[in-house]
Amino acid sequence: MNSTGRFITFEGGEGVGKSTQIKLLAQKLTDLGQKVCVTREPGGEKIGEQIREILKSSNSIDPICETLLIFAARRDHFVKLICPWLHQGCWVICDRFYDSSLVYQGLLKKVSIENIMLLKHIAIEDFEPDVTIILDTSPDVSIHRIKSRNLVNDEYDDMGRQKHDLIRKGFHKIAEIFSLRSILINAEGSEKAVFSRIWRALEKRIYTGRQNKNQS
Amino acid sequence: MNSTGRFITFEGGEGVGKSTQIKLLAQKLTDLGQKVCVTREPGGEKIGEQIREILKSSNSIDPICETLLIFAARRDHFVKLICPWLHQGCWVICDRFYDSSLVYQGLLKKVSIENIMLLKHIAIEDFEPDVTIILDTSPDVSIHRIKSRNLVNDEYDDMGRQKHDLIRKGFHKIAEIFSLRSILINAEGSEKAVFSRIWRALEKRIYTGRQNKNQS
Repeated sequence: MNSTGRFITFEGGEGVGKSTQIKLLAQKLTDLGQKVCVTREPGGEKIGEQIREILKSSNSIDPICETLLIFAARRDHFVKLICPWLHQGCWVICDRFYDSSLVYQGLLKKVSIENIMLLKHIAIEDFEPDVTIILDTSPDVSIHRIKSRNLVNDEYDDMGRQKHDLIRKGFHKIAEIFSLRSILINAEGSEKAVFSRIWRALEKRIYTGRQNKNQS
Repeated sequence: MNSTGRFITFEGGEGVGKSTQIKLLAQKLTDLGQKVCVTREPGGEKIGEQIREILKSSNSIDPICETLLIFAARRDHFVKLICPWLHQGCWVICDRFYDSSLVYQGLLKKVSIENIMLLKHIAIEDFEPDVTIILDTSPDVSIHRIKSRNLVNDEYDDMGRQKHDLIRKGFHKIAEIFSLRSILINAEGSEKAVFSRIWRALEKRIYTGRQNKNQS
């Protein structure tokens, strides 16, 4: 493997196993001698965490206000962490990126896709993930996993089967539209079985150079 | 006067006397029997105040991140306060609006005017102030007023003559570009003298109906 950084995002609804698979991938890449940085959205540095707090504490936030806040956090995250890490040759693994805005704010909260893509260009210009792993499970499997975590008070977790299904369809659409960078992975079965699928799919792409320019 | 709400914004650099003149105008309109609501940016409801705190506490915020946050606060302010007040027939007086973003984030911090106008359309669509009062003073007068307030730790106040001059030119440009809604007021002299100028200019426009549709 060469020393150029890569940007790998994980997407999918709640309960599909993103955190677990991110840990396994980070370990695998570290074992292979790569410098790995794991991060999540919305988050990053101080401003990102402050925005995360606003989003968590606001029950009746306007969807456009929410989207602007998420892109502000994304911009901070991008400039302060993601870009410097990539320039240092890190393999950056990010739990959610702008695809989640297209699904959660766009499809679910009816913010127009045009506005979301405008905000994407304002915040991160033409930057794109090298690879996006979209984890996919049936509603039954996700809801079972969510319940076993007892995260019933979180908006992203406390959602019914119908909502879960809409989110799933949204991510299927993302996989279709961004087919060059996206890999849809069946995330049912054991952690090990799912990771094998991810690794097989990733290996095929992992030796190619970065196709996108990063902004500094 | 009819009972339709109006949206009046005050703009200008620091030390031009916006707060004082807003108080005088609010009093005058109240005396004339109008329902008056005074507000400021970035601010408004809880989210606006939380964003204000982020902006105040961050020394090295990226200009695009800052602009996204300001428009998130503006959206919240617009949806939660300004629109409902206007629908109730209030005369809303607002200390700064999106013209300030054009000057402070655009001219001063080099965020592109195109991106700021895109954000304006995402956040408040085609909504515009009915009247914008731009208060104008020479750097000497402003700096003297700022010093007398002892507000030397605030970014917006602790600025040199050159910066003040750039901001002043920016607001002159706003008065030129948005000439239909803007009134450039010489804000030097006594509070009373300045208010007389504002009131004379406002009276000419104040009986006309709202030209813009408000979004609900």
